[in-house]
Amino acid sequence: MQEIPQSEIPVLAIDLGGTKIITTIVSRQGQVVAKEYCLTLADEGPQPVIKRIFSSIDRLLSAQSMEPSHLESISMAAAGVIDSERGLITTSPNLPGWCNIPLRDTVKEKYRVATFLINDASAAALGEQHFGAGKGIKDLLYLTVSTGIGGGIIISGKLYSGVCGSAGEIGHTTIDVNGPRCSCGNIGCLETLASGTAVAREAIRRISHGEKSSLAGMVSGKIEDITAEEVDIAAAGGDSLAREVILQAATYLGVGMVNLVDIFNPEMIIVGGGMAKMGDRLLNPARRVVMERAFRLPAQAVRIVPAQLGDDAGVIGAAVFAFQQSLTRRTR
Amino acid sequence: MQEIPQSEIPVLAIDLGGTKIITTIVSRQGQVVAKEYCLTLADEGPQPVIKRIFSSIDRLLSAQSMEPSHLESISMAAAGVIDSERGLITTSPNLPGWCNIPLRDTVKEKYRVATFLINDASAAALGEQHFGAGKGIKDLLYLTVSTGIGGGIIISGKLYSGVCGSAGEIGHTTIDVNGPRCSCGNIGCLETLASGTAVAREAIRRISHGEKSSLAGMVSGKIEDITAEEVDIAAAGGDSLAREVILQAATYLGVGMVNLVDIFNPEMIIVGGGMAKMGDRLLNPARRVVMERAFRLPAQAVRIVPAQLGDDAGVIGAAVFAFQQSLTRRTR
Repeated sequence: MQEIPQSEIPVLAIDLGGTKIITTIVSRQGQVVAKEYCLTLADEGPQPVIKRIFSSIDRLLSAQSMEPSHLESISMAAAGVIDSERGLITTSPNLPGWCNIPLRDTVKEKYRVATFLINDASAAALGEQHFGAGKGIKDLLYLTVSTGIGGGIIISGKLYSGVCGSAGEIGHTTIDVNGPRCSCGNIGCLETLASGTAVAREAIRRISHGEKSSLAGMVSGKIEDITAEEVDIAAAGGDSLAREVILQAATYLGVGMVNLVDIFNPEMIIVGGGMAKMGDRLLNPARRVVMERAFRLPAQAVRIVPAQLGDDAGVIGAAVFAFQQSLTRRTR
Repeated sequence: MQEIPQSEIPVLAIDLGGTKIITTIVSRQGQVVAKEYCLTLADEGPQPVIKRIFSSIDRLLSAQSMEPSHLESISMAAAGVIDSERGLITTSPNLPGWCNIPLRDTVKEKYRVATFLINDASAAALGEQHFGAGKGIKDLLYLTVSTGIGGGIIISGKLYSGVCGSAGEIGHTTIDVNGPRCSCGNIGCLETLASGTAVAREAIRRISHGEKSSLAGMVSGKIEDITAEEVDIAAAGGDSLAREVILQAATYLGVGMVNLVDIFNPEMIIVGGGMAKMGDRLLNPARRVVMERAFRLPAQAVRIVPAQLGDDAGVIGAAVFAFQQSLTRRTR
């Protein structure tokens, strides 16, 4: 077989989320050249999920007539607190039962290629910085706002991951010290107040208490089925309860951003994840809170923008991470 | 006159605080070889304070039989939101009337040597990292807890200052979204809940409402004169109100640290400033909150320790900053 030039050897990049597993081939130019999905079925616990990851890799390689040896590496982005140094998922609110699971080495042993594991929001931050909304920006923060809230930190153009690799858990910082307890064990976390889950929960709570909203009709009276996406649709249609609920979450999100602006004085905050699809309905109130409450100098300096890579940010970023690591190894 | 070797040319380093101006000569080895103090008298506004800075520099140079040309540079650490790039104090809660004051260039024009201006807590972070509690640590955070709460961020061994130079305002992050308004304009800031001012305010509030405490006797009944230092003395003597007030502030401080631990996954948090003199009475409850509420991986990784350089951290750090900047200029 003809040898493939270094610059064309791709990464097999995986995004392991609480809902689905996205498995892709990503080129050095950041293009997703092949992709397949399967459900995570996270409730079945780690071993069945790892089997599904293997099957997914095998199917994709087979469909592309590729062998593991044709890969630069395998790189995985996963929801949870990742010990990057040791390749462990130490804990993950969205992957029940994953406690110090050595996912990196398990995959590496099977496929015998270099393998990497990083947090999904950190990966998305890298992806957006190289190929998305943050191109050319040196100091930026990425927030993924969906079921939960994750964060990634880019400093001087590089991913900042802290001493164990778990940095960026912005969703689990307290903004309401007297607020509700979060699934992570902390109190009044940004995630409990501004995530998609929080939006749905608040809409359900208010409608259950007898408030009127077009949302009740949208779910045929099954109030508990309301999602953040439906709240957004209702808000777009002029429903005032839906608008108030989104405004409240956006205000909390703005408070979280004020904290980031005052701590990091960043050039940009990129917002991705399902809730980012709400666009300015979410971002404008958050921007207003930043202008009102953060120090003027950093508030005027920061741009708060939507992500550009959509669902591909995680896998593209995981691939960027792998290419960077390989480069570091080669130049040592 | 004999030429002084490069390695022995010192920096004139100044710490401009809300209460006093410390003016020093600092050697390349981080030694404070000469020092003088004067009161800031900040209420008189910027121009009189700048005159006092000039007088202080003149007196110190004269006492040391030095000329400005004998200095590597002049480096100033100041309380407030600093635009390091442009050398401005943009705003400062402790320096009334300082709004976009070009302190760096004002000093530079008079003394005709390279001049630098950074935030005082950022300077202290650098000082502690080079010559204090953080020697050899690459990723650390410094918190100064006194009248207010300031912060400094060291990443990969270097000061992180953000896109305008104002990063590190950890004291002005919201931890209680329904809390009191802070002098900075934000709501429920860490500073309003955990600073020395907060400790004194809470003790005064409780005693004014009729609660018993030995503090009343300590200030001869002038309740409004109670300071955080006196609350600490009363707590050391077993006063339960004083102990409760400190425990409450320490718990809030712990919440602020949980946020930093989850965001930065740092190797170390160094606590300086007047409140740090409370030692484990302040730090132990804060450490407990971190262990209870932050993610386990970063909580177990971080060491929370008292600062070692005391009041000299700011000037030593300002000197470190100046030596680093000069080195960068020379090697360009």
